[in-house]
Amino acid sequence: MNATDFVKRLLVGRKLASTQLGETLLPKRIALPVFASDALSSVAYAPDEILLTLSLAGMAGFAFSWEIALAVAVVMLIVVMSYRQTVHAYPSGGGDYEVATVNLGPNAGVVVASALLVDYVLTVAVSVSSGVQNAKAMMPFLAGNEGLWAAAVILALMAMNLRGVRESGSFFAVPTYGFLIGVLGMTAWGLFRILGLGENLQAPTASYEVVGSPAYEPFIGLAMVVLLARAFSSGCAALTGVEAISNGVPAFREPKSHNAATTLAMLGGIAITMFGGIVLLANLTGLKLIDPDGHSHFLDTGVPVDVAHETVMGQLARTIFDTFPVGFFFVITATMIILFLAANTAFNGFPVLGSILARDGFLPRMLHTRGDRLAYSNGIFVLAMAAVGLVVVFNANVTALIQLYVVGVFVSFTISQFGMTRHWTRHLKTETDPRNRARMLRSRAINTVGLAGTGIVLIIVLASKFVYGAYQAVLAMAVLFVVMRSIKAHYQKVARETAVGAMDARLLPSRVRAVILVQEVNKPTMRAVNFARATRTSSIEAVTVAVDEAETREIVAKWDEQGLDLALKVISSPYREVTGPFVNYVRGIRSDNPRDVVCVYIPEYIVGHWWEQLLHNQTALIVRTRLNFMQGVMVTSVPYQLASSKYAFDRAERNSAAAWRRPGTGQVRVGDFNEPGRRE
Amino acid sequence: MNATDFVKRLLVGRKLASTQLGETLLPKRIALPVFASDALSSVAYAPDEILLTLSLAGMAGFAFSWEIALAVAVVMLIVVMSYRQTVHAYPSGGGDYEVATVNLGPNAGVVVASALLVDYVLTVAVSVSSGVQNAKAMMPFLAGNEGLWAAAVILALMAMNLRGVRESGSFFAVPTYGFLIGVLGMTAWGLFRILGLGENLQAPTASYEVVGSPAYEPFIGLAMVVLLARAFSSGCAALTGVEAISNGVPAFREPKSHNAATTLAMLGGIAITMFGGIVLLANLTGLKLIDPDGHSHFLDTGVPVDVAHETVMGQLARTIFDTFPVGFFFVITATMIILFLAANTAFNGFPVLGSILARDGFLPRMLHTRGDRLAYSNGIFVLAMAAVGLVVVFNANVTALIQLYVVGVFVSFTISQFGMTRHWTRHLKTETDPRNRARMLRSRAINTVGLAGTGIVLIIVLASKFVYGAYQAVLAMAVLFVVMRSIKAHYQKVARETAVGAMDARLLPSRVRAVILVQEVNKPTMRAVNFARATRTSSIEAVTVAVDEAETREIVAKWDEQGLDLALKVISSPYREVTGPFVNYVRGIRSDNPRDVVCVYIPEYIVGHWWEQLLHNQTALIVRTRLNFMQGVMVTSVPYQLASSKYAFDRAERNSAAAWRRPGTGQVRVGDFNEPGRRE
Repeated sequence: MNATDFVKRLLVGRKLASTQLGETLLPKRIALPVFASDALSSVAYAPDEILLTLSLAGMAGFAFSWEIALAVAVVMLIVVMSYRQTVHAYPSGGGDYEVATVNLGPNAGVVVASALLVDYVLTVAVSVSSGVQNAKAMMPFLAGNEGLWAAAVILALMAMNLRGVRESGSFFAVPTYGFLIGVLGMTAWGLFRILGLGENLQAPTASYEVVGSPAYEPFIGLAMVVLLARAFSSGCAALTGVEAISNGVPAFREPKSHNAATTLAMLGGIAITMFGGIVLLANLTGLKLIDPDGHSHFLDTGVPVDVAHETVMGQLARTIFDTFPVGFFFVITATMIILFLAANTAFNGFPVLGSILARDGFLPRMLHTRGDRLAYSNGIFVLAMAAVGLVVVFNANVTALIQLYVVGVFVSFTISQFGMTRHWTRHLKTETDPRNRARMLRSRAINTVGLAGTGIVLIIVLASKFVYGAYQAVLAMAVLFVVMRSIKAHYQKVARETAVGAMDARLLPSRVRAVILVQEVNKPTMRAVNFARATRTSSIEAVTVAVDEAETREIVAKWDEQGLDLALKVISSPYREVTGPFVNYVRGIRSDNPRDVVCVYIPEYIVGHWWEQLLHNQTALIVRTRLNFMQGVMVTSVPYQLASSKYAFDRAERNSAAAWRRPGTGQVRVGDFNEPGRRE
Repeated sequence: MNATDFVKRLLVGRKLASTQLGETLLPKRIALPVFASDALSSVAYAPDEILLTLSLAGMAGFAFSWEIALAVAVVMLIVVMSYRQTVHAYPSGGGDYEVATVNLGPNAGVVVASALLVDYVLTVAVSVSSGVQNAKAMMPFLAGNEGLWAAAVILALMAMNLRGVRESGSFFAVPTYGFLIGVLGMTAWGLFRILGLGENLQAPTASYEVVGSPAYEPFIGLAMVVLLARAFSSGCAALTGVEAISNGVPAFREPKSHNAATTLAMLGGIAITMFGGIVLLANLTGLKLIDPDGHSHFLDTGVPVDVAHETVMGQLARTIFDTFPVGFFFVITATMIILFLAANTAFNGFPVLGSILARDGFLPRMLHTRGDRLAYSNGIFVLAMAAVGLVVVFNANVTALIQLYVVGVFVSFTISQFGMTRHWTRHLKTETDPRNRARMLRSRAINTVGLAGTGIVLIIVLASKFVYGAYQAVLAMAVLFVVMRSIKAHYQKVARETAVGAMDARLLPSRVRAVILVQEVNKPTMRAVNFARATRTSSIEAVTVAVDEAETREIVAKWDEQGLDLALKVISSPYREVTGPFVNYVRGIRSDNPRDVVCVYIPEYIVGHWWEQLLHNQTALIVRTRLNFMQGVMVTSVPYQLASSKYAFDRAERNSAAAWRRPGTGQVRVGDFNEPGRRE
């Protein structure tokens, strides 16, 4: 095992066989942290975004934080109730994509898929950025390079996810529960001190007056409605991640749907409690935030910049645990880690969705193939790269990223709820059992409320955020939609073009004419000649192109020495090029014998290092590419393994083939679908 | 003809057939501008570099410009005399490389080649940079982006050279002769006005005092020797390019050697005259330059910066043609153009040398192949890219670039002269005719003087410039030397490894077993099956890998529908991967039947656009790569041309194959080296 293998083993873990897939199914206590960290962790930034949006109206704005929080909680309740219906109706894990495709047609499905793909990327970018921003309360040295730190975290998450789902679950349970305990404990302790002991706890920013933007003073009329809508839209970031469970149903233990629905209910309850607790504490301690882009500011300019920009979580932990620093560090550490793990939700959901889309022909087929590990390595990689791009461009600025966020989730929420109402209506048509009908009618009512609620939120989000950045997300979705439709159209066209007809299996060419390309007389060429002769084609020719007269005479002389009963033909090349005359010669054979097939044998050097490739096979490559365009011509590479290829071969073997020989797993077996030709 | 073709035709011109090569031979009047522009154009920067180096000693330094110029002229004379012997002795155009290889062995040859390759790149970089610097006298807007302008000029030169040698000659003759007339005319007119009419012509900088670097005041002893050596070394830039003629002998008309020697003598005479004239005028007009890096400066700080940095040529033309602005513009324009054309010398020499080195196995073989045009397109491209890199990094600063220059030329001069003395000594051993012996003795004496002269200059150049930048050139040569030796060693190793043995032509495998990789049941797969069956191999199997159970059942069902009398084998894939199990299956066949050969048939989709490649053939590519490492396995691609490939095919045809069908040129002919299998 060399160093590379060791690192790969360390990062990616051992391979898992297909039969081991059962082992990766998740119990509820593990599924909750894996799928819920996104929704839970958003309490670390959703209150911040509400408060700093409201700060644009100055002191008058902060009074509305409670109302906004309540509205978000109500929407959360509606969405959770709605999705509990979905996980029962569609346990296959297609989630919103499947619901939309089945009930509203493939175009709706692709719209949902585009929206979800964009939002998965944003989930990673926002969560990791917020994690870095929160971490600054403990580690001030992060300031200045937030984008690069966030990128590093994303790459680390990518590596962990390439190890596979199950290890992710175990690995992520402890910190998620730590965050739960930390935040709920802090809330309880804070409320006890304020309400029980009657202490006057004041946030570091409590004593400052906030001056808003002139646009929102006085805070009445349309300006007020617009700003409250923006604050609400930003707060709705707390809702993202709920759909992750509906996409992840197959990863649950049996009974899958029931367990998923229960987990969803738990998630909803916990999220609303934490969110409410944080906003309540912020109100009680007089906590204030200002817009980092400078549209609002503190009246007292003496506020240290690092305090002014500290997150809600940082200020609360500092205030409530003022006499208990261990508590402060515990809460901030747990917040940081849960935010990084929240990104993991997307690392679970994105590759699964990508694979489903690839299966349906909307993405390149290679995304459908699993890699070494059971996780979908390709999808994980693509997601990580896109998110790294975003955090670097936005330098991990949560407030800027949040403007692009949420749109996608509510697009898919709304379409999916619409699909669910169709689903129940369709099933009600055929269902006769009164108990089932009653359950369906109830479900349809819940999904109809869901449709109305999420639809209204979508309109509010689009209207209030569009010019602030949501248009970029909409644009990305539109591009993805067009790309996915085009890929599908391409695969469909190819499938039509290549569909087997009645005669295809009987179109046997009358003869195969072998042509061997000779550029030197050496072992590789002789091997090509011998292989071609062993194949016993109808005719066989060896052909060389005369680029340089002296060289050609030498080749001919050496050829004659070999004493083969096969003449070497020489083609003249007025432009001293090999490709053109050779391809034209083959074309000549084809047009003289249109019912025959030509098989061109090309000796190829197999080398061990990439730079050796530059020194060999260039002509072979060009000739092959040109011949590929010709009907009725096949190209046979006859590889000659140079000694240096041994190293590259060993490396390739170690990386993949070796695993197939491990005792007990993956011995080559001829399957039992149809049997005549079974080996051994 | 589409737009791309039109542009290509415009830039690269029509193809030339092998038989047209004679037409590209050069008469002396064309050969002079083509090969001599480098040496001639250096009068536009060599005097500058002498003066600005001397300026480090303040006013005392300028007094030595005459002595330095004289020394350079003497070396020029020696080198020209020496190379006249070389063009007679080695008319094949290998030049210094051939002389060194034949007389001193391949390692000496590779040293010379490394030196020349580096210096060709520097010739382009220095000449074009100087051209841009001189052009600033007319076009001040160039200032600031000199590097980018120089890069643009190099790219334009590249495009012109890709058109071929002959057009270059005609194209470049007019401006070269224009430069000759301009400079000689300016010199004559200036001398006439000063000496004949007794006018007091003063350069714009004549009235300024120059303050040197403290290191060189007082200007005596070691400091003086060191500085004069540096000034002389920079002045020796005037000598580069002389070897271009000896490398270019085959491009001359018959009698080649005689014409080349005559051209060389003309070149030497003209260059010395121009060089001497410029330095004389600079002295007479009191012209002064300062070091652009700021080690020397004018005492009068009121000098406008643009005058202070104006080149010698610019200042002289301004002074002498003070009443005749047309003369000023003519000289500056001609200077600019000749400097750009000087780079053309390298564009003539570099690709020829690269091709010779590729022929001898020191560079990748593909550099030996001629492109569409008779010029060596690959070499031209590599040279242009390297020079563009240099001018961009150095921002076309001639004084910085000149520190790297000259070393390479004198390395090859010295080794080549050493080789020439060996050459004559060897021939004198067998020569008995007294007249021939006398001529050879005279030649040997000249080359011995040449060896001594160039050897001394090489030592001076190395010692005086090493730390100022020459070490970079030496490093580049060392790297090139190692790379070229390694490439040669690689080719030799491969040649030994692949040399045909007595038995190679008789190692016929006992049977060929065909294996068809089935991933879908469609036309491409059916074509592969039909082609494989038509080939009549000893056995034939169709194999699919069961990645997904449902998919596999569908494939098997469709296969059975086809009614082929060929069973489809199914290989289980515990890791849901195609490559590993398939490769292992083939390995099993091989180890069960070690004397047989396996031929794997893979259907391949031929598409029209690069992005379609991402959607197809990925598995085929990976399988092929893995199988290539296996002994006794050949891989046959059976291409299936999708409708979209038509466009790409047409484009490829237009770009190359079409030319082979032009009446009269390039019809496919079966040559007359050996004949039994003649077609038609």
